[in-house]
Amino acid sequence: MKILTYGLCIALSYCTLIDSQLFAQEKRSRARDLGITVGILPTGQWNAITDVAGVKVGQTSVISGESVRTGVTAIIPHEGNLFQDKVAAAVYVGNGFGKMIGISQIQELGNIETPILLTNTLNAPKVADALIDYMINLPGNERVKSVNSVIGETNDGGLNDIRGRHVNRDHVFQSLREAKSGPVAEGNVGAGVGTETLGYKGGIGTSSRKLPASKGGYTVGVLVQSNFGGVLQINGAPVGRELDNFYMMEKKEAYKADGSCMIIIATDAPLSSRNLERLAKRSYISFGNVGGFSSNGSGDYSIAFSTHPSVRVPYDNKNQRELDVKDVHNDELSALFMAVWEATEEALLNSMFMAEDMTGINNRTVKALPIKKTLEILKKYNALNHDKLPKAVKN
Amino acid sequence: MKILTYGLCIALSYCTLIDSQLFAQEKRSRARDLGITVGILPTGQWNAITDVAGVKVGQTSVISGESVRTGVTAIIPHEGNLFQDKVAAAVYVGNGFGKMIGISQIQELGNIETPILLTNTLNAPKVADALIDYMINLPGNERVKSVNSVIGETNDGGLNDIRGRHVNRDHVFQSLREAKSGPVAEGNVGAGVGTETLGYKGGIGTSSRKLPASKGGYTVGVLVQSNFGGVLQINGAPVGRELDNFYMMEKKEAYKADGSCMIIIATDAPLSSRNLERLAKRSYISFGNVGGFSSNGSGDYSIAFSTHPSVRVPYDNKNQRELDVKDVHNDELSALFMAVWEATEEALLNSMFMAEDMTGINNRTVKALPIKKTLEILKKYNALNHDKLPKAVKN
Amino acid sequence: MKILTYGLCIALSYCTLIDSQLFAQEKRSRARDLGITVGILPTGQWNAITDVAGVKVGQTSVISGESVRTGVTAIIPHEGNLFQDKVAAAVYVGNGFGKMIGISQIQELGNIETPILLTNTLNAPKVADALIDYMINLPGNERVKSVNSVIGETNDGGLNDIRGRHVNRDHVFQSLREAKSGPVAEGNVGAGVGTETLGYKGGIGTSSRKLPASKGGYTVGVLVQSNFGGVLQINGAPVGRELDNFYMMEKKEAYKADGSCMIIIATDAPLSSRNLERLAKRSYISFGNVGGFSSNGSGDYSIAFSTHPSVRVPYDNKNQRELDVKDVHNDELSALFMAVWEATEEALLNSMFMAEDMTGINNRTVKALPIKKTLEILKKYNALNHDKLPKAVKN
Amino acid sequence: MKILTYGLCIALSYCTLIDSQLFAQEKRSRARDLGITVGILPTGQWNAITDVAGVKVGQTSVISGESVRTGVTAIIPHEGNLFQDKVAAAVYVGNGFGKMIGISQIQELGNIETPILLTNTLNAPKVADALIDYMINLPGNERVKSVNSVIGETNDGGLNDIRGRHVNRDHVFQSLREAKSGPVAEGNVGAGVGTETLGYKGGIGTSSRKLPASKGGYTVGVLVQSNFGGVLQINGAPVGRELDNFYMMEKKEAYKADGSCMIIIATDAPLSSRNLERLAKRSYISFGNVGGFSSNGSGDYSIAFSTHPSVRVPYDNKNQRELDVKDVHNDELSALFMAVWEATEEALLNSMFMAEDMTGINNRTVKALPIKKTLEILKKYNALNHDKLPKAVKN
Repeated sequence: MKILTYGLCIALSYCTLIDSQLFAQEKRSRARDLGITVGILPTGQWNAITDVAGVKVGQTSVISGESVRTGVTAIIPHEGNLFQDKVAAAVYVGNGFGKMIGISQIQELGNIETPILLTNTLNAPKVADALIDYMINLPGNERVKSVNSVIGETNDGGLNDIRGRHVNRDHVFQSLREAKSGPVAEGNVGAGVGTETLGYKGGIGTSSRKLPASKGGYTVGVLVQSNFGGVLQINGAPVGRELDNFYMMEKKEAYKADGSCMIIIATDAPLSSRNLERLAKRSYISFGNVGGFSSNGSGDYSIAFSTHPSVRVPYDNKNQRELDVKDVHNDELSALFMAVWEATEEALLNSMFMAEDMTGINNRTVKALPIKKTLEILKKYNALNHDKLPKAVKN
Repeated sequence: MKILTYGLCIALSYCTLIDSQLFAQEKRSRARDLGITVGILPTGQWNAITDVAGVKVGQTSVISGESVRTGVTAIIPHEGNLFQDKVAAAVYVGNGFGKMIGISQIQELGNIETPILLTNTLNAPKVADALIDYMINLPGNERVKSVNSVIGETNDGGLNDIRGRHVNRDHVFQSLREAKSGPVAEGNVGAGVGTETLGYKGGIGTSSRKLPASKGGYTVGVLVQSNFGGVLQINGAPVGRELDNFYMMEKKEAYKADGSCMIIIATDAPLSSRNLERLAKRSYISFGNVGGFSSNGSGDYSIAFSTHPSVRVPYDNKNQRELDVKDVHNDELSALFMAVWEATEEALLNSMFMAEDMTGINNRTVKALPIKKTLEILKKYNALNHDKLPKAVKN
Repeated sequence: MKILTYGLCIALSYCTLIDSQLFAQEKRSRARDLGITVGILPTGQWNAITDVAGVKVGQTSVISGESVRTGVTAIIPHEGNLFQDKVAAAVYVGNGFGKMIGISQIQELGNIETPILLTNTLNAPKVADALIDYMINLPGNERVKSVNSVIGETNDGGLNDIRGRHVNRDHVFQSLREAKSGPVAEGNVGAGVGTETLGYKGGIGTSSRKLPASKGGYTVGVLVQSNFGGVLQINGAPVGRELDNFYMMEKKEAYKADGSCMIIIATDAPLSSRNLERLAKRSYISFGNVGGFSSNGSGDYSIAFSTHPSVRVPYDNKNQRELDVKDVHNDELSALFMAVWEATEEALLNSMFMAEDMTGINNRTVKALPIKKTLEILKKYNALNHDKLPKAVKN
Repeated sequence: MKILTYGLCIALSYCTLIDSQLFAQEKRSRARDLGITVGILPTGQWNAITDVAGVKVGQTSVISGESVRTGVTAIIPHEGNLFQDKVAAAVYVGNGFGKMIGISQIQELGNIETPILLTNTLNAPKVADALIDYMINLPGNERVKSVNSVIGETNDGGLNDIRGRHVNRDHVFQSLREAKSGPVAEGNVGAGVGTETLGYKGGIGTSSRKLPASKGGYTVGVLVQSNFGGVLQINGAPVGRELDNFYMMEKKEAYKADGSCMIIIATDAPLSSRNLERLAKRSYISFGNVGGFSSNGSGDYSIAFSTHPSVRVPYDNKNQRELDVKDVHNDELSALFMAVWEATEEALLNSMFMAEDMTGINNRTVKALPIKKTLEILKKYNALNHDKLPKAVKN
């Protein structure tokens, strides 16, 4: 059965595996479902970036033959025509050794005018070109001559024939067409198919936080494409060392310290681009909590946007020189910062807990985080069931 | 002959016009050849970016039918394999409303590992993808899985079918293959085929400065792709107002204030990326001297690199953890700043003086700067023959 | 009478000369009164930063004995308690070789909570401490434990005993107490007493622009403390070269290339801190128009703020988590950019035209720009009476 | 005896308590001495910033009467005249809601020319002025007219009469005079006398890391002035929640989320200012590991410098336009990043473990972290004795 499906893929040369559990050896679960509760704030309904109303995610996995292990993940801030109705946004460059496309315009104008697409490093330009295609051909954009494609990437070349740039226009369009709200596929899916994190298989992960009413009641959602090294920690437990698999370990086997991480942050709080940049920056702190330190070779970028209607930016402002904007006061930002910090940590964990073993180019296999062993370690460090500890104020 | 070539081009659908003088009405000359001497420093031999030893420029004009008016310009810092032997570099974002690709890695690592390519806005990703193709297939790069393509762009959509993204892989490879030192074609060539500047036809321009021995004897070369609006000044004379053609003029006809400008700066001085960024920044000041003010819609980027052997960065540093670097002392930077400032102003003027009338998409024509009238105005303002004024110290 | 006052000052050791014309040899006039009209936009009523309603300027010149030539200039965004009612603001660092105090908090929070004070380099901390004193003792600030003093400075050590830090608490309080709207003293006054610009005496200068109704009708005001070198240009004319007094001139006499420049920009347009930073950046372009290029030793900073009531930031936001803000659409920024560009150039010229000869420490004299000779040069280059050229649209 | 000393202090109005253990209730120990080993890398000899050869620390505690609880901490990069012999340096602004002085010049020129002084928020300018005094009067600096004082601060206003600005010139000079290498006093000392961290008394902390020979054998030392809130974690254990003392806790008692943190990083690796900035940035990640997330009100700054002789910058470069510099290749940075990350976490913990209860203004007491209870919690989470886990490669 598996072989048949796989054979079909090979026959089609390029194909998309909807069921990425094809290669699973150990049943995968999200961190929280295993008893790992990160932080003090409650999650949203799906514990996903899609808990921010209107946000959709679409993913196309591109898996083919023995060496194509890649894909594309699309995050769509709202259902409308984003070019005509931009969202306030910001980007924080944690470590700029990466090829993210679209940074300077976000920073200058404070908004995003396309969906955000994630893919592999060498595929970023091709995906950007496909996104231009998509955008300029949307109804209403017939006269558009300038589009700032926002493309994030990490390097999946350890498993994928990255030099082949196998993500094409069709994959991009498919991810945009099939994007939806609700639960988000994690692990070896979309742009996460071929990534590696903290010594194990990484991928796509997501999480969310909902602030108490006394802090504004806002929702923050995070989605990550994880692909970096370090010394794995899970909810405080030194899992990487227990598993003897970490950067600079005595055991001399190769360990990949480099890599990259893309972090996408959505919120329904009405924030200026300045304060969105501050939110984005807090996700950088979360690296420490999973044992990452943003190595030299890691392209670490965080993009934050607000879906609040008042901070939308119309392309055509003919009748309104001055926009009427809501702007959360600086003093109210701390709770939002905490939400980003927590949700990023949990999204990173989910990207690992949901990822499965993957064999790719040169017959190399990257093992998934061993869940059973990991849970034993977590027990040893009392890192489970933190939900019984005191939590944040409820209202 | 020219007509034949053009007909052939149409027949071939895409083609490259080597002789861009096809549309000339008035003989074009470089600013200095018309008696316009900018600043106090002497130029290099060619008064071009190629005066910095080792720098090459290659340009492919993509002109076809009635609506394709675009192209690509390549600046190559040195002859070798740039990926294996990177050059110290920096980028300054004057106004980030643009789609330049490759910024964050230059800023993070302080170097450039590919040629710099200039093209049109919507073509940037496609050109970046072609550049990846070129780089990963160079001898020695067989195992390379990550390349930071550096692509600048301005929007030539006023004359060009920019939505069609007509610059393709072949044009990119041609520009790289044919790149050479010596004189550089200016005006309607390469990435300058379809651009507009300060109310007239813009394009590619270049200039250089040579410092006196007492200031280090360094050479600075600048190449620009000009495409922005304002209130044209030439060597101090208010030419835009005299011609009644400027931003916000009483005469209500449309005047394009927006646009963009790419500025590439080469030097043989051994500079750190920090000081290269400072050089790049000074080119922003030159806008004022030609009457630009970096309007909202202008994507203005300056890239600076050093060709000095000591600041090269080897990809493979296996045998040398610590590089031996020469680093010009901060206090010696002012003369280099002045050289950038002067050369950028003159390169911008050359881009206009060398550009010819161009008719493109929707049968729209952008007129070249009228040289005869302009010279009359310059005489009125005594803006010619400034070479008789006191100059910089010679040695 | 003047001599008597001066004698009295010496006797008192520290004193303030209200009449800075004490040392005048040639009657000083503002650039515009001499027929030098910069740019295409009209000025406000006073052609001063105080044309932005509510903005006040207070200056205390500290001149004493043979070596104290310094002072303090205060720019006050509005009459109220600025700490309780902050103004949206931004700062752009053109060249960071300076000691401006207060930058990071403005950049992080997007506002200013004190008046802006300008003084000399080594006096900046002492003036900052005095400003803290002033702020924490204002009615309503009894419990304030954190104040972000905003202090700009340039180095007047060529004329002033800068090591003595002669600007004290009383001078600061006096400048704040006596601040007023209406015309602003220029040249050798306040923080401009001891500065040098482009080979001549510099100082304080100001100018303003009023946009046509079709561009929002906003006012932009600029005040500069000028103290830098280069190759003086006035309205396009190469005055520095004609006077054989410029950086790197063949004539080997010392010419001061370094120095610094503080630029303060006020507007009544409701702008976000992001767009205020963009405004601030455009003032950097103006250097080119007067012949400056931001030399290595120049600390060049631009601070922009908006007085619009909707972008005020209350210290106490107890009852309003989300502020209601007006925000000019990005696309409407170009006209404001142009206003900053023009007003900065004219403010810089005013700082020179209004400054008089000054003799200071070590009996060194810095001559004022020779007005008669300069006007002859301007005539030669037809740089006068540009008000007869086409201007900006009126409405 | 203690009472006598205290009475004497009151009598003298200002005095320095060398013995800051005056108020101790529970014997304090450094984290590592309690069995808390952070990370995988070994420490230097003193586990202090002074493990970087040549670095000295001097601290003056200013404790007087019932309301003065503050001080100054000096970090001196080398014994010589720093102005004449500057060190390569960089600063990273984590959250700019603070009053650090000297940032822009460090960023522009890539060096530091004074010792780094830490103090309280409102005292920063007064301390900067004292540092100018100190610097311009050093032998050899008789003609110096410009000094970039580098002052960090956090707000100790919860325990200290911060409005009084009690740190004066004498305290500054004392801290500089008495600076020494070897062990560094931690907790309630110098600039840490009145600070609060993660719900308990904070203060000064320090730690170091020594890289294996295969990673260059470099030393990295960190010193922190801690004063911020969050959800305390110690070596992964959720101590703040166990103690029911954290930001946004259900228990409605006041908890101080805001505050600030100064982080000083020294290394003997020869690094460019660009790479020093990257080191500085990694310390921001360490916040997450102790449960901080850089709240809105936290002024978080990291300053990094190199003591390597080859990256010193001479004030007087008369005979050498081009400096000869060693520069660690980008690819070798990851191990240094890890060292910064680990040492910062441990320095933060030391600042809490070494701090004692403190009673200050308005008779308010901030309790020290309860060591006995904390150790019980750490045992529960198996957070002690991690030194038995696999470590980094030795050579």
